[in-house]
Amino acid sequence: MQHEGLKGFRDCYPPEMAARRAVIDTVESTARRYGFREIATPALERQRLYTDKSGDEIVEELYAFADRGGRDVALTPELTPTVARMVVERGQEFTKPIKWFSTRPFWRYEQVQQGRFREFYQTNVDVFGSSDPTADAEVLAFAADALVDLGLSADDFEFRVSHRDLLGGLLDAFDADVDRRAAVRAVDKSAKVETAEYHALLADAGLSLAQAEQFDDLLAADDLDELVAFGGDDVRDAVENLRAVLAAAADLGVGDYLDLSLRTARGLDYYTGVVFECFDATGEVGRAVFGGGRYDDLIESFGGPPTPAVGVAPGVMNSTLPLLLQRAGVFPAETVATDYYVLQVGDTRPTAARVARDLRARGHVVETDLASRGFGAQLSYADSINAETVVVVGEQDLANDEVTVKEMASGDQTTAPVDEFPGDHDRPTYGDFA
Amino acid sequence: MQHEGLKGFRDCYPPEMAARRAVIDTVESTARRYGFREIATPALERQRLYTDKSGDEIVEELYAFADRGGRDVALTPELTPTVARMVVERGQEFTKPIKWFSTRPFWRYEQVQQGRFREFYQTNVDVFGSSDPTADAEVLAFAADALVDLGLSADDFEFRVSHRDLLGGLLDAFDADVDRRAAVRAVDKSAKVETAEYHALLADAGLSLAQAEQFDDLLAADDLDELVAFGGDDVRDAVENLRAVLAAAADLGVGDYLDLSLRTARGLDYYTGVVFECFDATGEVGRAVFGGGRYDDLIESFGGPPTPAVGVAPGVMNSTLPLLLQRAGVFPAETVATDYYVLQVGDTRPTAARVARDLRARGHVVETDLASRGFGAQLSYADSINAETVVVVGEQDLANDEVTVKEMASGDQTTAPVDEFPGDHDRPTYGDFA
Repeated sequence: MQHEGLKGFRDCYPPEMAARRAVIDTVESTARRYGFREIATPALERQRLYTDKSGDEIVEELYAFADRGGRDVALTPELTPTVARMVVERGQEFTKPIKWFSTRPFWRYEQVQQGRFREFYQTNVDVFGSSDPTADAEVLAFAADALVDLGLSADDFEFRVSHRDLLGGLLDAFDADVDRRAAVRAVDKSAKVETAEYHALLADAGLSLAQAEQFDDLLAADDLDELVAFGGDDVRDAVENLRAVLAAAADLGVGDYLDLSLRTARGLDYYTGVVFECFDATGEVGRAVFGGGRYDDLIESFGGPPTPAVGVAPGVMNSTLPLLLQRAGVFPAETVATDYYVLQVGDTRPTAARVARDLRARGHVVETDLASRGFGAQLSYADSINAETVVVVGEQDLANDEVTVKEMASGDQTTAPVDEFPGDHDRPTYGDFA
Repeated sequence: MQHEGLKGFRDCYPPEMAARRAVIDTVESTARRYGFREIATPALERQRLYTDKSGDEIVEELYAFADRGGRDVALTPELTPTVARMVVERGQEFTKPIKWFSTRPFWRYEQVQQGRFREFYQTNVDVFGSSDPTADAEVLAFAADALVDLGLSADDFEFRVSHRDLLGGLLDAFDADVDRRAAVRAVDKSAKVETAEYHALLADAGLSLAQAEQFDDLLAADDLDELVAFGGDDVRDAVENLRAVLAAAADLGVGDYLDLSLRTARGLDYYTGVVFECFDATGEVGRAVFGGGRYDDLIESFGGPPTPAVGVAPGVMNSTLPLLLQRAGVFPAETVATDYYVLQVGDTRPTAARVARDLRARGHVVETDLASRGFGAQLSYADSINAETVVVVGEQDLANDEVTVKEMASGDQTTAPVDEFPGDHDRPTYGDFA
């Protein structure tokens, strides 16, 4: 019987996967150059790793179930709680700051839409053990450099940067009993809903309508001095911290990619300081591409020592980032590449296999006949895998102690002594023998 | 509150992960050189992808549950059913043979023991669309070469090779009503149970005790001519195919790693032709390291066109292969590597950040101060991450338009003009300026 895959899950076939792999390799290469170290983490965690912080309603968005041992478990919807758990368990063995990265899939039971799947891949990058603005700046610099390494420019993307304590400090400055978490969520939704609904959400959080309007005006102005004048010491500290992060990021060479944007809140509850979201600068991709920020309380709340933390998680596959790369025309080519096809004609397998083996030992991508096919079928296959050079090992060639070397782009071909193929050549081509 | 990970699941921290990554990179590099193309596949499938072939009892070994849409789903316990599904869905778009690989975790609800976890990583390598013995040989050659690339030799490992139709043909040659699947499972268990229990399992499958003993003697002798004499045409064909595969593998240069071993059966139901398992040649690691074989009927049984297939799946993490590499003393170093630490003293961040940026742009792994720490604490951190070179950017240095370049292994240091660091140097070190 025929089977089908699950909705929201994608099979990724080779020509497309080559492009996805190029994106992942680029992002990971940037992370490695910044000195982030790779970790690997489980796909399953106990459900309470999520419900403790976010309440039982979070389970509705998870792939959650009881395992055969009766444990309530969930497929990990994000990495942050897992790495926080790991820092609690063994963080004391590492000199601070701890800098980790990993690329892997996550799972959420969500409505499927363009660029949003139930299984998606992120490269998570985190710094643990530093509250210094330089740490926030390094995370921003990594993220911006990764996008530049992918081929994007300042015309293509922007990071909208804000600070959680700015929102909190402003809310405290109002004479009102405000549910801070609800207000932050309202701000997070402000770009996605009508102004009236946004103000109603703020009212639900405890602000009067007039206060909600004033609050929103303050955020919309993006004027830090005005905020300090309105708010108290918390606002002053937050503004100072935010300015220090922006200055450090400018020293790291990524100032051009950053914009102050106080309406940026990030939906997750655990953020405590600077938060940011990456957007398509042209607005064509409407949703946030990815985001990150500081979460200084999470590790302590998991039973660890006070451990400040800041991180970011670009979605590298089944996510919004590929849409941005495609919009900007820099998504990598969806194509397979092959250095050599060794074409065998007649009873020449020992030599053909030796040639293939020697070329592979030099690091090249080499295919040979696996189906006892004729000359034409093999040449057609070599073309289908974009072979750069075809080495024909025919009975007639071998009778002359030769092989035929064919450059596929031009169709030009010549002969080469079989002993010199590859012989001393590291990457022998038509040009070496013509 | 404190959280703990699940039993049978492992957190992998950086120094260990560096070694695991080296293993995965080596195996994938070998696969790429053979012309296998990367794919990505879902972590979840519908349960019936497994129960159709293996019966409902397989669910007991799976992480299986109903998702929020009421679908019976399972965490993928292996890749083969998924790639077979993918070949059915879109295989006709690809020129045959199709050659795919991927590295990812799988999950089984099993008893946890040394080298066996509930979450484990495999690199799956498969050829679709060729029944030629060269295809089986290429899969064997890839697997052997991957182990050699990992540093193992013919003294360290052996592939025990057999053929499913040999077992089937022999069983048919007995005058008995034999449950072939049960008999194959008995053979698969023969090395793990007492002889009496093994013979009892064969008796359960329908052989008399005398037949069971004769069957086992025939398998133990590893004499293909004797088998042909005893069995019929099926046995003759299977022997011919097995010999052709071994000859093709010898042409590919991996004959030394292969041993005929007719008691090798592989537990999975879908195998149809050559099957093999890799073992520690010293016997110290007692379990099979990994295995593979031909499964010519699976894709057709999933509703696709007749499509022969052969594959192998080395376990690259949380599996037996690392135990073999450790036993042989070739498991990669569990250590982190850092090219440069840029040490900032005083108010020198713009220059220190510029130096770090320039070194990263040249591809190096570079860390800098993220915690406003003093000279000694930074040097100690640089040592903890095994920095090769420390570049001191101090206020006094900069007053002389210099930086200090310190070689960490020797402790030697010298000064370099700040404009020449890195300047035209691709990888500037102490030696360039001393």
